[in-house]
Amino acid sequence: MSSIWGNKVKISLFGESHGVGIGAVIDGLPAGYAIDLERANRHMKRRSPGYQPGATARREEDRVRILSGLYMDKTTGTPLCALIENHDTKSADYSKISAKPRPGHADLTGLARYEGSNDPRGGGHFSGRLTAPLTFAGALALQILESRGVIVRAHIYSIGTIEDTPYDPMKIPKDCSEHSIPVISEGQGLKMRELIETLRNELDSVGGVIECIVTGFPAGLGRPIFDNIESRLSSIIFGIPAVKGIEFGRGFGVSSQKGSTNNDEPYMTERGIRLRTNHAGGIEGGITNGMPILLRCAFKPTPSIGKQQNTVNLETMSDDTIEVGGRHDSCIVPRAVPVVESAVAFALLDIMEEG
Amino acid sequence: MSSIWGNKVKISLFGESHGVGIGAVIDGLPAGYAIDLERANRHMKRRSPGYQPGATARREEDRVRILSGLYMDKTTGTPLCALIENHDTKSADYSKISAKPRPGHADLTGLARYEGSNDPRGGGHFSGRLTAPLTFAGALALQILESRGVIVRAHIYSIGTIEDTPYDPMKIPKDCSEHSIPVISEGQGLKMRELIETLRNELDSVGGVIECIVTGFPAGLGRPIFDNIESRLSSIIFGIPAVKGIEFGRGFGVSSQKGSTNNDEPYMTERGIRLRTNHAGGIEGGITNGMPILLRCAFKPTPSIGKQQNTVNLETMSDDTIEVGGRHDSCIVPRAVPVVESAVAFALLDIMEEG
Amino acid sequence: MSSIWGNKVKISLFGESHGVGIGAVIDGLPAGYAIDLERANRHMKRRSPGYQPGATARREEDRVRILSGLYMDKTTGTPLCALIENHDTKSADYSKISAKPRPGHADLTGLARYEGSNDPRGGGHFSGRLTAPLTFAGALALQILESRGVIVRAHIYSIGTIEDTPYDPMKIPKDCSEHSIPVISEGQGLKMRELIETLRNELDSVGGVIECIVTGFPAGLGRPIFDNIESRLSSIIFGIPAVKGIEFGRGFGVSSQKGSTNNDEPYMTERGIRLRTNHAGGIEGGITNGMPILLRCAFKPTPSIGKQQNTVNLETMSDDTIEVGGRHDSCIVPRAVPVVESAVAFALLDIMEEG
Amino acid sequence: MSSIWGNKVKISLFGESHGVGIGAVIDGLPAGYAIDLERANRHMKRRSPGYQPGATARREEDRVRILSGLYMDKTTGTPLCALIENHDTKSADYSKISAKPRPGHADLTGLARYEGSNDPRGGGHFSGRLTAPLTFAGALALQILESRGVIVRAHIYSIGTIEDTPYDPMKIPKDCSEHSIPVISEGQGLKMRELIETLRNELDSVGGVIECIVTGFPAGLGRPIFDNIESRLSSIIFGIPAVKGIEFGRGFGVSSQKGSTNNDEPYMTERGIRLRTNHAGGIEGGITNGMPILLRCAFKPTPSIGKQQNTVNLETMSDDTIEVGGRHDSCIVPRAVPVVESAVAFALLDIMEEG
Repeated sequence: MSSIWGNKVKISLFGESHGVGIGAVIDGLPAGYAIDLERANRHMKRRSPGYQPGATARREEDRVRILSGLYMDKTTGTPLCALIENHDTKSADYSKISAKPRPGHADLTGLARYEGSNDPRGGGHFSGRLTAPLTFAGALALQILESRGVIVRAHIYSIGTIEDTPYDPMKIPKDCSEHSIPVISEGQGLKMRELIETLRNELDSVGGVIECIVTGFPAGLGRPIFDNIESRLSSIIFGIPAVKGIEFGRGFGVSSQKGSTNNDEPYMTERGIRLRTNHAGGIEGGITNGMPILLRCAFKPTPSIGKQQNTVNLETMSDDTIEVGGRHDSCIVPRAVPVVESAVAFALLDIMEEG
Repeated sequence: MSSIWGNKVKISLFGESHGVGIGAVIDGLPAGYAIDLERANRHMKRRSPGYQPGATARREEDRVRILSGLYMDKTTGTPLCALIENHDTKSADYSKISAKPRPGHADLTGLARYEGSNDPRGGGHFSGRLTAPLTFAGALALQILESRGVIVRAHIYSIGTIEDTPYDPMKIPKDCSEHSIPVISEGQGLKMRELIETLRNELDSVGGVIECIVTGFPAGLGRPIFDNIESRLSSIIFGIPAVKGIEFGRGFGVSSQKGSTNNDEPYMTERGIRLRTNHAGGIEGGITNGMPILLRCAFKPTPSIGKQQNTVNLETMSDDTIEVGGRHDSCIVPRAVPVVESAVAFALLDIMEEG
Repeated sequence: MSSIWGNKVKISLFGESHGVGIGAVIDGLPAGYAIDLERANRHMKRRSPGYQPGATARREEDRVRILSGLYMDKTTGTPLCALIENHDTKSADYSKISAKPRPGHADLTGLARYEGSNDPRGGGHFSGRLTAPLTFAGALALQILESRGVIVRAHIYSIGTIEDTPYDPMKIPKDCSEHSIPVISEGQGLKMRELIETLRNELDSVGGVIECIVTGFPAGLGRPIFDNIESRLSSIIFGIPAVKGIEFGRGFGVSSQKGSTNNDEPYMTERGIRLRTNHAGGIEGGITNGMPILLRCAFKPTPSIGKQQNTVNLETMSDDTIEVGGRHDSCIVPRAVPVVESAVAFALLDIMEEG
Repeated sequence: MSSIWGNKVKISLFGESHGVGIGAVIDGLPAGYAIDLERANRHMKRRSPGYQPGATARREEDRVRILSGLYMDKTTGTPLCALIENHDTKSADYSKISAKPRPGHADLTGLARYEGSNDPRGGGHFSGRLTAPLTFAGALALQILESRGVIVRAHIYSIGTIEDTPYDPMKIPKDCSEHSIPVISEGQGLKMRELIETLRNELDSVGGVIECIVTGFPAGLGRPIFDNIESRLSSIIFGIPAVKGIEFGRGFGVSSQKGSTNNDEPYMTERGIRLRTNHAGGIEGGITNGMPILLRCAFKPTPSIGKQQNTVNLETMSDDTIEVGGRHDSCIVPRAVPVVESAVAFALLDIMEEG
């Protein structure tokens, strides 16, 4: 593997940010599911540049062309290839800085890895733009999961130090996907928007945390020891550029808990066994327990900033400075919300299909 | 996969806590490496029950028997099977509680997954005891890595709210592996010890965080998009029971940073390009950048506690209470330090071998 | 896996015979290799319909569009997506027979597998047309291998009972790739051509055998027990539709040999150890021995024939007859020669990259 | 992978012929299946040395010890480790010839692959003895398959030029597993026995072909393009040492057929659609069609022969001769019959579990 993920339902990502196009082959989708492409496109639009505050001005509409795997709007069970052609690319913005590795980017590591062969324009295959086909694959997974009663939702948990109301781990949250800033508390959303605007003006950027919840997912899935739910989900989530941490349920908060305050106690109801709390985030021993699956992941601030930074010059082999031009998000988090939903949905579909 | 992990160097774990034995087959080890089994056993002992404060009284010496893959103390390149036979098992302690799922354990999820077929004694295959063969595999990986100049070290970052001095992300820490509590600050170690003792007396338990650093690992390894370093490491780390979160470099701390304060700036030295800081934890764009790899992972408090808890009774199908007897750690974190070192070392060896 | 093959260099095939297009994502190609697309297209043309005797009249030029993974004509090391759009499709030819499964086709098994969801037009994803992107992937592999001194060649070993001169297993054969019928003996090629013509007139078809040889491949590659050379090669070769058998070296002929007549004896030369014979086809114990790799694979006669055949009618649920119209090869073997070369080259590149 | 095989049910083989022991970890077995170990041992005995004509005199009873994965004689769904300890090993027989690579063995290729690190005694991990744990894994698979109505049987198709009555591809054959020479025609079995005896006296060996049939396997399984039934089965079968060819249904015989004589025609019956013939060996388009699965595989003559052969001497770096002593089969085919059954059963169980 490298740009391929999945055990039974697999995604193979391809493309460069400023090449002909980007896309995905999704191999192993279950057959016979109706797909609403309009709805998938609305999901994609939430990730598109130019629709969120603080987002890059690059207003490329990511129109997806299905090349295979759909017949009369239903999945055929054979590989589905989705292609997004690139149109609005201004490589000139990038070519002038290629001798100066951008701090916080994969420029130096990509050089070490691919010895100068990779496409340098716009981050090439390592561009955040590659999350678009992943998001589309997730849009399909979300629809298939929904038809099975599984709902996946995410919101901005925090940007900088401004926090949204956290999800109640016991129940399904209201849908805030149509908000330009997907948060529960609109007041906190406004503060986030202001913070992003301030940082844009300072030619700087800011990080944040996204929280995701899944309801209706069956108990008893996940395959310990290594194909447990946390391993599978973290493995795909770290495929999203800029993620530097992930936690499930109480996450790092468990470290200061006692067993007596952290264990989720079962009790009997007429409809079966329930748990009084959901500190475990729906996963016990790597297997789903029927409670909502809850996770949070941390995004670093966009490394591309207009502010002057120190770097080196690979031509002169000396110290230098750089101001990263081009069109960049001063905060990637709002656009990353549907990406997280998609990655989680894709992984859970794979886990369900594996059984 | 399920109890198999790895792309090129693979580990296949087997065994039940109270069965004949537990062990691992390690497939794909490079050939010709000298292995010091005494040293591997010392590494194992750090994980063994009965040697750390707060650890279970079960004093089983985990003596490893090598069944294959070593010839005249060198790896042959063919699968190495390591077997640890179980001796000191008191299944009676467990049999009486099998009708009552233990809160915080995989009892209910294991039932949902395996429909009552799995070995219920002592957690069966899901027991923390299965970390012993993983730790042994890591002991071999640590020796192979060390012969290549790579050092992997871990310490207790925190237990409850008591924190050790964090690692300096720029350099190799001193070796505290011989401490009964592996910490840098012995004063903080004493406080941790007291906290663990207090909780033991209260028949309760406590969680914590482990920090791990790797020096000498080559730049340019890791295969984006999905076989990036963070995905690979998190995928194996979540295979350790009780882990609920993982973060790299600044981790969740990135969310409140700005781009200008978070980017690691390159500068030129006589020996090549260096970075002034290591907020990224040695990984940029999913590829190693030559700086130390730094990660932290959160362990929940041991779910097995003597204190009375609410649960259900699967025979009477009604609410009930449970006091988990048997021998359990009131804090798993000290014993988990070599497990984390081992998991990280094993994953990095696989990544190196893959190239 | 399903339409994905490979350990380190992977191919993910997509597309339906009469859909928008077909193609492949090749993930894990080594970086920095110059690719001659004109040459790759010439290789593709050998497989194209309409250029060989007995081939279908469908004259679609399979022009490949590279969407990613090449930058300034060199591989970037990131996924390469190759797309072939479909133009010359006459689905009407197929629609009228969909109620009647064609004998010898995957119509009934595809129905059992995908419950009626797959694209029925022209075989959909199971069409022999899906060998086109595999052939293209192999064309790239052939060029990369050639730059490393490895040559892969194939010829028609037999069609019906007419046999070409077999390869000498000890040395590289002359290149007959430009022949319309790729054989060594032109006389036998003429007879094959006549046989194919006769069968076309009889609205029938015929099978054959292809032989493939590889020279210059390094000794010591292949990973027993299960990733041995024969397992890897057979696994990809059976991905070519219509293949029903494969053999290496003497193949089935070994069954009537004695140890004393079958063992390849080593002898010493100034340039190292050589073998006097190559009955093993370059593979001993699943590992290459430095001698040419030699294999043969059997292709069944094209199942689509104009002659009347018995079948069932799925609408009336009764017996019926069918005459398969449309444009079909009366012998697939000549067109399959570059496909076999490509599959072998792709597998060997993966094996080399794995190390 | 290397000594690991399988997608959902995986086998990980370990051990050296003359080391502590050999065995397998089977990961992903379905939970809750009763296993009759006595019966599995009878299956193992058919492969054991010393029970067949022409077999090595090494009379090691391969007693399997189950270390995990069985609880109260039922599969637990967690990894099952089966260990066979080595007792009757005479390494001295081997040590004297280690400077002289044995013709037809993996001695030279193993050297090229593992650079002298592998265990040289008795073939080490590459010994035919490693088929014992595979055979045991298959014995479990055979029992699980049988409980689902699937029967797997094999017989000797030919030894040298002496042929048994071939299987009728349309129906289940009688069970000849208790024959010391598993054939249908006892007269031909006698001739085979004589041939083997003759070759033993001549210090030589002979090859053969094994035919295997599977009845009751459901239609609609197999995942084209690359996880088709033929690819999966050939991939595991070539993991058996000495196999040099495999064919399905008519196999290489298809090459001289016409479409009109090779296609299997469907017809309607009261119980559904049937096929009049089974030339395809139960597999159409890589997917099972509900007819018996039929395959044959060719085994080369045992390379270890007492007759003098030419080889090289790696110490003197000059030509030399060798007479391979030790205890060897003059024909491996009778013992390989249960191995083929096991490999086929294991692969089919994996395919069924994958769905």
